Amino acid sequence: MTDIAVTLADKRGTLPTDDKLGFGKIFTDHMFVMDYASDKGWHDARIIPYGDFNISPAAMVLHYGQAIFEGMKAFRTEDNRVVMYRPVDHLNRFNNSADILSIPQMDVDVVHTALKKLIELDKHWVPKALGTSLYIRPFVISVDPYVGVKVASQYTLFIILSPVGAYYASGFKPVKIKVEDHYVRAVKGGLGEAKTAANYAASLKAGEVAKKDGYTQVLWLDALEQKYIEEVGTMNIFFKIDDEIITPELNGSILNGMTRRSVLAVAKDWGMKATERRISIEEVYEAHANGHLQEVFGSGTAAVISPVGELCWKGKKISINNGAIGETSHKLFDYITSLQQGRVADKFGWVEEVTKL
Amino acid sequence: MTDIAVTLADKRGTLPTDDKLGFGKIFTDHMFVMDYASDKGWHDARIIPYGDFNISPAAMVLHYGQAIFEGMKAFRTEDNRVVMYRPVDHLNRFNNSADILSIPQMDVDVVHTALKKLIELDKHWVPKALGTSLYIRPFVISVDPYVGVKVASQYTLFIILSPVGAYYASGFKPVKIKVEDHYVRAVKGGLGEAKTAANYAASLKAGEVAKKDGYTQVLWLDALEQKYIEEVGTMNIFFKIDDEIITPELNGSILNGMTRRSVLAVAKDWGMKATERRISIEEVYEAHANGHLQEVFGSGTAAVISPVGELCWKGKKISINNGAIGETSHKLFDYITSLQQGRVADKFGWVEEVTKL
Ligand SMILES: Cc1ncc(COP(=O)(O)O)c(C=O)c1O
Ligand SMILES: Cc1ncc(COP(=O)(O)O)c(C=O)c1O
Repeated sequence: MTDIAVTLADKRGTLPTDDKLGFGKIFTDHMFVMDYASDKGWHDARIIPYGDFNISPAAMVLHYGQAIFEGMKAFRTEDNRVVMYRPVDHLNRFNNSADILSIPQMDVDVVHTALKKLIELDKHWVPKALGTSLYIRPFVISVDPYVGVKVASQYTLFIILSPVGAYYASGFKPVKIKVEDHYVRAVKGGLGEAKTAANYAASLKAGEVAKKDGYTQVLWLDALEQKYIEEVGTMNIFFKIDDEIITPELNGSILNGMTRRSVLAVAKDWGMKATERRISIEEVYEAHANGHLQEVFGSGTAAVISPVGELCWKGKKISINNGAIGETSHKLFDYITSLQQGRVADKFGWVEEVTKL
Repeated sequence: MTDIAVTLADKRGTLPTDDKLGFGKIFTDHMFVMDYASDKGWHDARIIPYGDFNISPAAMVLHYGQAIFEGMKAFRTEDNRVVMYRPVDHLNRFNNSADILSIPQMDVDVVHTALKKLIELDKHWVPKALGTSLYIRPFVISVDPYVGVKVASQYTLFIILSPVGAYYASGFKPVKIKVEDHYVRAVKGGLGEAKTAANYAASLKAGEVAKKDGYTQVLWLDALEQKYIEEVGTMNIFFKIDDEIITPELNGSILNGMTRRSVLAVAKDWGMKATERRISIEEVYEAHANGHLQEVFGSGTAAVISPVGELCWKGKKISINNGAIGETSHKLFDYITSLQQGRVADKFGWVEEVTKL
């Protein structure tokens, strides 16, 4: 097992009040860092004070985007335990992204241990209020100072932590989503399945246009025919039709979302029919026209469940469940958030205790 | 006109001998830097000593890849003038990439002036030997410390300079190219036309596999049908069939290469038939089978012209022109490199003098 050297921050910060948290703007006192060199493998695992670092202007990541990341959460329970949600599943997905980007595999045990140590050290940064959490962002970047296209030979892994406020600060509310019929995020044979910078860069323009038109995010269609549903900007998507919940199958161009996996498992556990299959936007519009479309919701680490109240495809708007939150969306949100914050028993083994406060 | 503040390096480095240059590993004494903030626009244009800089681990570029770059060259002529090749055309393409990535437009005049000042300052870094040059890498990265997907509001532009050796150090030689039939680089509606990190990240895995099989780079096919030819990893591609040179048309998913533009203009000027159109890999293989395929060559800033001696598509290998360099490839290489280094008159207005040594 790799030793982790710890350098403590001179001063400890304080957790802002819940209303000041927002998302992704505030960081804790420490971060975990580990380097890779082709002759040494991953080495020099260390926890150091959070802060800027030095990088070469020729660092490959700035030019060729060889980078991957993860996004997961830790929570403070009512009895002041700090727990993480599916950390090992997230770290395995991290390694899958690494493979797709030709980044060397990490030892999940080492990173998992580091993550626990880091959170233990910064545990007073985990907020307590309902809906708040500690967002965990592990990422790897290529750092060789080399201005030519190739697979890098030097990388740095970071884990940074950010306390985040309740996603639904003003109440659990349905969002409006635009079905994107022009821009494309990812294609079979591309990077769509990886959590990598490239996919998000590809989503910016469409996101901007959608926001101007009053939509929160876009729903991507497949690159080949612009017909089959893929996923939302930072969420997977579910449709409830005739009491069955349906989500696009994993086809290599969408993210294998952790919340998606959780939703499928929970719904099945409840005895619901939960199906992963190819589904076209036409089928969804038809189901709506015939009165069979009951709910639409997104799933992702940030929002957990995000009910969709309106879809707009090529200018045709449909209102889902009259713009109200559906029963299943609500039940899933309540159940998964309760499970994450330790308010219901963890029958799936998804919740791992890190430390107590 | 923006003022450019200059901070000189304490010590000046020396240009290594030609055999030590290689590509993209050595950098000059200074770099140009300029910042963007949404309330200030582009500001604080400055030339400072080349070196590492500070960045937040939460800087958006490291996570979401909002980044663009350019690649162009300056040369030292026989009479010791330093000239740049099509700098304004490159900077206009830079702004086109900016638009695709939702990065604020730059003032081409300002960046052009900065570039000239920077090269003037580091002019002793421009190597002289035939085939050597000063590679110029302007790039923009998003730097907001924010861990959420959105268009950034803070950017930094850099220009760094790297003296590079002759691309064909061991002689002008044909390369072997693998036609990629599994991985995909870019798709209509995506980022393919931009010079952006994402496209290069998407090319790494295929490049690695091809290299293992003894090929220099891959030739990409269209994402939709894997049928039509797009471009090579870092080059556009040309086919000479029945004395006509053909290159894939600009379709939104390939780079509008500067060398491609130069080749088309020069060939036309020579009275050759030079056509931009959709061309399938089948057509190329058929032309070869029927004895009509005379030459294949890539075009790009690094190599200028790169003759292709062998193509391999789904395991079927064809030898082009018996693996020898074609007449047109050779003529184009000689002419364009002569033009760039001031050995023939610049009838196209592509060469701009920066300074004298
Ligand atoms: C593109 C994309 N799809 C889906 C998701 C949802 O995945 P998860 O549930 O693992 O957060 C995310 C999460 O950020 C995402 O970025
Ligand atoms: C993807 C790609 N295509 C084509 C080219 C050739 O473009 P240019 O001739 O402007 O260098 C490059 C150059 O680096 C490239 O990266």
